[in-house]
Amino acid sequence: MEQDHGVQSRSHSRPTAVSIYDIARRANVSPSTVSRALENHPRIGAETRKRIQELAREMDYVPNAVARSLIANRTWTIGMVLATIADPFMGRVVEGVEHVAIEAGFNVFVSTSQNDPQREIAVMKMLKQRRVDGIIVIASHLFDQYPRLFYRSKTPVIVINEQKPPSDAMHFVSVDDIREAYRAVEHLLKLGHSRIGYIGVTNRPKSNQHRLQGYREALQAASIPIDPALIIVPEETQDHMRIGEISLEPLLTAGATAVFCYNDAVAIGLLSACSKRGLAVPEDLSIIGFDDIDIAAYTVPPLTTVRQPRFQLGQRAMLMLLAILDGQEPENEIVPGELVIRQTTARPASDQARRQAHIPLRPVDVR
Amino acid sequence: MEQDHGVQSRSHSRPTAVSIYDIARRANVSPSTVSRALENHPRIGAETRKRIQELAREMDYVPNAVARSLIANRTWTIGMVLATIADPFMGRVVEGVEHVAIEAGFNVFVSTSQNDPQREIAVMKMLKQRRVDGIIVIASHLFDQYPRLFYRSKTPVIVINEQKPPSDAMHFVSVDDIREAYRAVEHLLKLGHSRIGYIGVTNRPKSNQHRLQGYREALQAASIPIDPALIIVPEETQDHMRIGEISLEPLLTAGATAVFCYNDAVAIGLLSACSKRGLAVPEDLSIIGFDDIDIAAYTVPPLTTVRQPRFQLGQRAMLMLLAILDGQEPENEIVPGELVIRQTTARPASDQARRQAHIPLRPVDVR
Repeated sequence: MEQDHGVQSRSHSRPTAVSIYDIARRANVSPSTVSRALENHPRIGAETRKRIQELAREMDYVPNAVARSLIANRTWTIGMVLATIADPFMGRVVEGVEHVAIEAGFNVFVSTSQNDPQREIAVMKMLKQRRVDGIIVIASHLFDQYPRLFYRSKTPVIVINEQKPPSDAMHFVSVDDIREAYRAVEHLLKLGHSRIGYIGVTNRPKSNQHRLQGYREALQAASIPIDPALIIVPEETQDHMRIGEISLEPLLTAGATAVFCYNDAVAIGLLSACSKRGLAVPEDLSIIGFDDIDIAAYTVPPLTTVRQPRFQLGQRAMLMLLAILDGQEPENEIVPGELVIRQTTARPASDQARRQAHIPLRPVDVR
Repeated sequence: MEQDHGVQSRSHSRPTAVSIYDIARRANVSPSTVSRALENHPRIGAETRKRIQELAREMDYVPNAVARSLIANRTWTIGMVLATIADPFMGRVVEGVEHVAIEAGFNVFVSTSQNDPQREIAVMKMLKQRRVDGIIVIASHLFDQYPRLFYRSKTPVIVINEQKPPSDAMHFVSVDDIREAYRAVEHLLKLGHSRIGYIGVTNRPKSNQHRLQGYREALQAASIPIDPALIIVPEETQDHMRIGEISLEPLLTAGATAVFCYNDAVAIGLLSACSKRGLAVPEDLSIIGFDDIDIAAYTVPPLTTVRQPRFQLGQRAMLMLLAILDGQEPENEIVPGELVIRQTTARPASDQARRQAHIPLRPVDVR
């Protein structure tokens, strides 16, 4: 499980009264523990109850009447909507949500949109019909339409890894794709690479766009012109590993000495292609991924990547949902990633070494 | 998506009347299409309707009154219970279930037990309270208790990858773990290995036991005595990749020249450990996995493994559930696996080659 890297809040909302969420944070317990302590629930020990009740007084906590009335109608179920369960990124995010939800007495139902916007609408409607208390969405394909879809809905929606919500009614917990992509490319620049490729995907259009933007900004900051030949976004498949595999040849032809991949799955496909072609990583090609999925530490060689705190993203989303159910207006959160340097990135090889490895030389020296 | 490898049915149930499921199979359409065709539903084209109605007459189909009354009370939702979403085996099974379910007009809710029997009970109860029309369970920890738990329940339960149901009320679709494990070890025996290790896990006790049994039976059939030093089941972690990683040294000490791993995740951990120790796979050690998860084709080198037809397991389970909802008593199914030979298995190296690679020699020649 990832460490808590601290959270920066962005996007401001109006100042609100103290919530059980705030008390929970101060007391370092869950919101449900605060709620039970304030109701003298028998499951909470006398000492904890006393400590929390004193803290609530000290913080001028006023129980929220709306929140109280909502509790009576609860189904104690949370719906999650994923693009697909087969994406290795998703598992730990769901575990993070479940970790907080179960502790607070909520069950979690997971549904998938299978990357299909029509399915996403159908699933969201179905969850509302089944009266879930809240919905958490990852990798939405419809985010821009949510304000319209949920205009009259009282069901709170938290979106993971989407930003710039088009409405105040929407909430998000997110990693900053642009900034984290910038960080990845900056790492390659610092190692001395200037011919840096990007491999993108088409079935995650928003985050692909943001990571590509981070790539562009990092190169621009280093005064390196953008070469379209180094940006590969295959359209013939949505299989991320296959995308990595088929992108090797065009990148070599374009003279890449290092590659920033949309995610770790793409990087794994690229690693496999390098091995099949007899190229050594990182000697012949440096590779950096994104996500830090579980397997990233076990690839051959172990993968350098930008970690998304997946478990924490899930935890934060569920804590935010609990706060909303408590009648509060929590702030959106940007959770920082972390550069994890393993063994797929190194200084670029000399032209002579590349010639010996039968790799095309850089067509232009852009420095 | 996997090919349909054909299905063998085991365990006999009483002969029953022709169901829409049977008609669907013959007509090569979904059960819901048959159902709609028989009800003259406008969404079904005239030609298909005619063909299906003729087929129904020809097969002496009699609409089932119980099934008809059940339809009125349907919630059109199916619950799935997984041990964990983070297991890469699960994704495609869920997709197989969803593929059939969505086509038949059902939504699928996924919940997890997090490998906790208490959670599994809680989740099953919650799904019943929410009146799902059926439940599909993968990697159950409570299978033996289901007859008691579901004694009075009308909610049908299909279990994936559990066999020998203790009650007629239970249904399953399964791969035969013993037979498929036998097949994996047989492949290593045919290559000439006799010092074959097994790496097991503790958080899937049933299937671990069955795969170990297949391993034992294959060795016994080849008149090779079982050496406990070659059977490694680490108890200090439940992380499958980590289990593979820490099992390398004891296996080398025991003189293993080949290893059958509980699953592909274990094999990936073992591959990583070999690379870190400077051992070549398969020259210094042959490795075979189980499952054929998506990444198995992209490891370095690509992993030899026993494929479980994951998508098909999900499809079959959902088709079986539709048959039960149609008032029928479908037969349990054993779905065959398939040996997928990639590049991690080869003939054993000579003792001289092993000495050069600084690998301990086999302590005994058991042949």
